[in-house]
Amino acid sequence: MSDAPLSRADFTAELEAVGQRQYHDLHPFHQMLHGGELNRGQVQAWALNRFYYQISIPRKDLTLMSRMTDPELRQTWRHRVTDHDGSEGEGGIERWLLLTDGLGLDRDYVKSLRGVLPSTRFAVDAYVNFVGSQPTLDAVASSLTEMFAEAIHRQRIQGFERYYEFANDDTLSYFRHRLKEAPRDVNFGLSFVLDNAHTRDEQLRCVRALTLKTELLWAQLDALYYAYVTPGFIPPGKFVPEGSAPTEYQR
Amino acid sequence: MSDAPLSRADFTAELEAVGQRQYHDLHPFHQMLHGGELNRGQVQAWALNRFYYQISIPRKDLTLMSRMTDPELRQTWRHRVTDHDGSEGEGGIERWLLLTDGLGLDRDYVKSLRGVLPSTRFAVDAYVNFVGSQPTLDAVASSLTEMFAEAIHRQRIQGFERYYEFANDDTLSYFRHRLKEAPRDVNFGLSFVLDNAHTRDEQLRCVRALTLKTELLWAQLDALYYAYVTPGFIPPGKFVPEGSAPTEYQR
Repeated sequence: MSDAPLSRADFTAELEAVGQRQYHDLHPFHQMLHGGELNRGQVQAWALNRFYYQISIPRKDLTLMSRMTDPELRQTWRHRVTDHDGSEGEGGIERWLLLTDGLGLDRDYVKSLRGVLPSTRFAVDAYVNFVGSQPTLDAVASSLTEMFAEAIHRQRIQGFERYYEFANDDTLSYFRHRLKEAPRDVNFGLSFVLDNAHTRDEQLRCVRALTLKTELLWAQLDALYYAYVTPGFIPPGKFVPEGSAPTEYQR
Repeated sequence: MSDAPLSRADFTAELEAVGQRQYHDLHPFHQMLHGGELNRGQVQAWALNRFYYQISIPRKDLTLMSRMTDPELRQTWRHRVTDHDGSEGEGGIERWLLLTDGLGLDRDYVKSLRGVLPSTRFAVDAYVNFVGSQPTLDAVASSLTEMFAEAIHRQRIQGFERYYEFANDDTLSYFRHRLKEAPRDVNFGLSFVLDNAHTRDEQLRCVRALTLKTELLWAQLDALYYAYVTPGFIPPGKFVPEGSAPTEYQR
């Protein structure tokens, strides 16, 4: 027996509550990042790992599109891929590389993915796999962290400009573009979820999908904090910032 | 152009080197666990999270078997599932629950998986997904961490008996059984890999598969250390040991 579905307003409030409770703007790593408390090597580690997320967003969207049976929906979704991969000009991934350039990271090293923390891969791949195995409704709901993204992008731009010498038009361009792109995406995604979650069970599935998404964003910051802040234990073979030493593990 | 394949001895040495370099017996969390340096709540967190790994090993083996075309190979592999799921008697998962019982954890809570860290899920699910998407050779190679498991089980039994009041025949029974089961598995798995990796490329794929496996074991301990040792930041909504408080995150 399922309860009656929530109203659109109450369901929206339930989705927003997930962000209030556990969006990664609450994570201590982000608070350090935006508050100017990270050194260059720690910001490098963040940008390098987050690059894996950036290149995987189109994998996620293509996986999702490959399972949509409605051509109109696929067409509406398509710009998310071009936003990142580019279309007659640079896209979000190229702009992310301007950030890693500005941080002094070698492009070939960044693109090789050799330095990426295993936990980053597992969390990001969990997103792609979720979208590839769950109904379209749940998959679209998992994208709704975009509801909370505008505030974090603004904080990031302000924090970078205020605290870090690497901040400039190139290194900030990714975030400034996202401020324009994300609102359009979230309007469509939220409408889709509100229109297509008809039962209380479907609404709960959407809340769970969004919760999973916040968990996998959070887990990426846990891993960065653990490896590069406290206790600073870098897994064997992974990125060691300039001026740091690999963590030595002994039997 | 591919190099010539290594001899069986050299290839075996290369596989063993992965364990020397990055098997999770090297991880600080295990060294604390085996050295009696963890409190009860930290051991609870370990056992609770590791329960998700335990119940997923048969998922991994069933996924692997579902992709094997050789009935004889499936039959040879089958006992790995019954070892854990049980067969006319308790299996490894039931024995793991004797450990969580002995640590004072509620069985229903453990089995609900509600307290499991997201990073644990992502790492464990990465294992199941790897086995479900890669050739049988690579999947079998990923199981070869069993080559290194005997030493860690012996350390664990000794450490538990020496340092922890919860150690008894029930709570140690999982590990004592594994000392009997694992050598048979590793002999078969290693022979299979040595017999079926004919080219240097296939050998390198096996090394990469085994490396991935060590990474996902390692990542599980990273997450435990981060949440329950230092800095002790528990992700929102996850297991809080008795006597501890949930981590408070604020904007």
